[in-house]
Amino acid sequence: MFEKRDELLEKIEELITRKRYAELRDMLLPMEAADIASLCEDLDDKVPLVFRLLPKELAAEVFVELDSDEQELLISSFSNTELREVLDELYLDDTVDIVEEMPANVVKRILRHSDPEMRKSINEMLKYPEDSAGSIMTTEFVDLKETMTVEDALKRIRRTGPDKETINICYVIDEGRRLIGLLSIRTLLLAEEDDVIGEIMERNLIAVQTLDDQEEVARMLGKYDFLALPVVDKENRLVGIVTIDDAIDVLQEEVTEDIEKMAAMLPSDKPYLKTSTLETYKARIPWLLLLMISSTFTGQIISSFENALAAAAILTAYIPMLMDSGGNCGSQASATVIRGLSLGEIRFNDLIRVVWKEIRVAVVCGATLAAANFLKLMLIDRMLFGNVSMTAQVACVICATLVCTVMCAKLVGCILPLLAKRIGFDPAVMASPFITTIVDAISLLIYFRFASAVLGL
Amino acid sequence: MFEKRDELLEKIEELITRKRYAELRDMLLPMEAADIASLCEDLDDKVPLVFRLLPKELAAEVFVELDSDEQELLISSFSNTELREVLDELYLDDTVDIVEEMPANVVKRILRHSDPEMRKSINEMLKYPEDSAGSIMTTEFVDLKETMTVEDALKRIRRTGPDKETINICYVIDEGRRLIGLLSIRTLLLAEEDDVIGEIMERNLIAVQTLDDQEEVARMLGKYDFLALPVVDKENRLVGIVTIDDAIDVLQEEVTEDIEKMAAMLPSDKPYLKTSTLETYKARIPWLLLLMISSTFTGQIISSFENALAAAAILTAYIPMLMDSGGNCGSQASATVIRGLSLGEIRFNDLIRVVWKEIRVAVVCGATLAAANFLKLMLIDRMLFGNVSMTAQVACVICATLVCTVMCAKLVGCILPLLAKRIGFDPAVMASPFITTIVDAISLLIYFRFASAVLGL
Repeated sequence: MFEKRDELLEKIEELITRKRYAELRDMLLPMEAADIASLCEDLDDKVPLVFRLLPKELAAEVFVELDSDEQELLISSFSNTELREVLDELYLDDTVDIVEEMPANVVKRILRHSDPEMRKSINEMLKYPEDSAGSIMTTEFVDLKETMTVEDALKRIRRTGPDKETINICYVIDEGRRLIGLLSIRTLLLAEEDDVIGEIMERNLIAVQTLDDQEEVARMLGKYDFLALPVVDKENRLVGIVTIDDAIDVLQEEVTEDIEKMAAMLPSDKPYLKTSTLETYKARIPWLLLLMISSTFTGQIISSFENALAAAAILTAYIPMLMDSGGNCGSQASATVIRGLSLGEIRFNDLIRVVWKEIRVAVVCGATLAAANFLKLMLIDRMLFGNVSMTAQVACVICATLVCTVMCAKLVGCILPLLAKRIGFDPAVMASPFITTIVDAISLLIYFRFASAVLGL
Repeated sequence: MFEKRDELLEKIEELITRKRYAELRDMLLPMEAADIASLCEDLDDKVPLVFRLLPKELAAEVFVELDSDEQELLISSFSNTELREVLDELYLDDTVDIVEEMPANVVKRILRHSDPEMRKSINEMLKYPEDSAGSIMTTEFVDLKETMTVEDALKRIRRTGPDKETINICYVIDEGRRLIGLLSIRTLLLAEEDDVIGEIMERNLIAVQTLDDQEEVARMLGKYDFLALPVVDKENRLVGIVTIDDAIDVLQEEVTEDIEKMAAMLPSDKPYLKTSTLETYKARIPWLLLLMISSTFTGQIISSFENALAAAAILTAYIPMLMDSGGNCGSQASATVIRGLSLGEIRFNDLIRVVWKEIRVAVVCGATLAAANFLKLMLIDRMLFGNVSMTAQVACVICATLVCTVMCAKLVGCILPLLAKRIGFDPAVMASPFITTIVDAISLLIYFRFASAVLGL
């Protein structure tokens, strides 16, 4: 497929050079908007040309799929008439998304060329906080009245349908625009023409509020297998709907954010290859610095036991193994709990169950690791390599530390994300790198404590 | 909301104890199936009772949402008639999902009580490999003929619609059941009654093959904003469709798997609180053991420089800082690349671009970390704490090692996942824990090399 992509790009460049525009247009027409947009990424300054070849509707679809950099480039190449034509074809929620990404002068130009009703809606939606249901909803839905017959409803859908983002679910409102029911297009089609909407509609409905978190809304759509969720204001008036395709984008973005945070980065909303070195640097350096500083405390611990280490130099060689194993155990526990929290499978109330489970897992994991390690120390390090300073006592210190480290790591790893969630922090930040630093320090303290006790250092 | 859940559970238990079944039924009726299923998790042996109170259709919806343990419990409590009733209400793809999770004796019972056509379809779908498009598709879609008029089509939808998983997209097939077009219910409703399907249908269509990877299919649904994707066999015959709600589940599962692999665990398909200690242990111990063994090589490196460390004991104290920083830098790079690969934003062909980018980021990150560290070493460790063995030379060794470690970590972190992808391995396995172990060894080698050269050990 990727070879095909490169071939396609070559072919497009060639057709442009040879000015075979009709041929190029015929080649693009059968393609999906998302695919054309992806090709545009590598066409640079030829994008406006390609764009003008497309029929209006397809052009608008491609426009929505482009990165904001290319959208900006295109808008600046548009005449006012062209801009107005593209805006006319866009759904409101897509326009709002675009406006949110553009610099102020471009926003002004877009608003100047939208029709007055559109401008009002854009301005209203821009007021909703980022990441709220209001900011991702569309106001183009089908609304019906309780008193309509199925025939009336179908007529209304036929009349207003072309401008709506979806007709698959229709919403029923009362005179005060309050949401009182919904019905699917399937229910409508399967009903008799003279059935009354109020009698066949679904009255048990789930709605979200404009200020609800978009992630929560997306997860609800996934959980209930809905195609859209109605969004109401505080007076239960229907103001918009969030459709499933937007929900998928939100879910993907939020997962990327979680993974970035879990790997000690500040989340970025641009694709990797589109971010500049400076932006990537800014996202990565804060945690690196913080974790570097905090890991020097681990160094302090080693320094303060310098004499013990000098007396039993063999202990130093096992520090990396202890630190790494602690880090790995901690990241297993924290990744599991963070993902469970974000899927809604684990709640803060489950703290005791989670801790008890991790204790049991830590006991068996710790015992297995310690046993494997003891065998390795005695058979390989001592007998095979003839390292006489590896006595059974030293091996016991190392293995006992390992058991304790595993226990600490699993406990810290499962408790910190839950606590973070409880006090309203993002649990994803309490992931591997952060926990590793804590567990490192704890495991070294245990190590030297055991060493002093057993080896009498 | 969680308080509400506990209250609800108490109320249900109370109504059951007092045998107020009608009241309980009225309480459950307005709830969503997914919510009732979630309550059932805590109702244990009362589930069959609650289940029998629900109307058939809602009962079937709840059944689909239950965990496989509870489904098995319920099935074993069903009479044959009850089992047949529930099976009648289920969509085919849900039945197949359930059958896949059940032990052999339950599967036999289910197949015995399905009607012959259903049994044939289940058996056919069970043949598709796990994780293939065939295994998640449903065969209950609306198929139309090219020669039908819109009126014929709507009639057909009204007649067959109740049994179809979705009517929002209809598929047009020829006499050989080959897929030739599709159209949305919106197109149908907005067309004239005597329009011919062949003239208004969309002919540019994207279909997937039965053996395509389910993750790829789910990502395509998200990318193209489709509500369903047609699944065809090798002869381009339409055999099923994958709907968006199943795609969301697949995406969520795959992300969980990625996160588990990135945290050095074998993926599990059960929610955390449902897995036994032994299962969790089995998922976690293999990587822990492997990484523990490999991190002892790092220990070997330290041992082999025992004399150098004895001569300049201060070097030991900075080993954790170097190892941690290397691990953090590596996990940043690898998490970014792994996520980019799984979103399709990065391809193997981008290797050079990715490497060049990481080199630049590594230079600035390394420089910043080294500068901060140098200041800290000289101002705090030497001047504030009066550690006279911290000479400018030692500080230089530490900071130079830091720069090299960051560079190695970023390079290893970005290259390994791309290589894994290239040779057909899962990139997610090449994540933080694995990379940390490699980077630890490299950074220690550099550390001691620098120390020997500069400090003449």
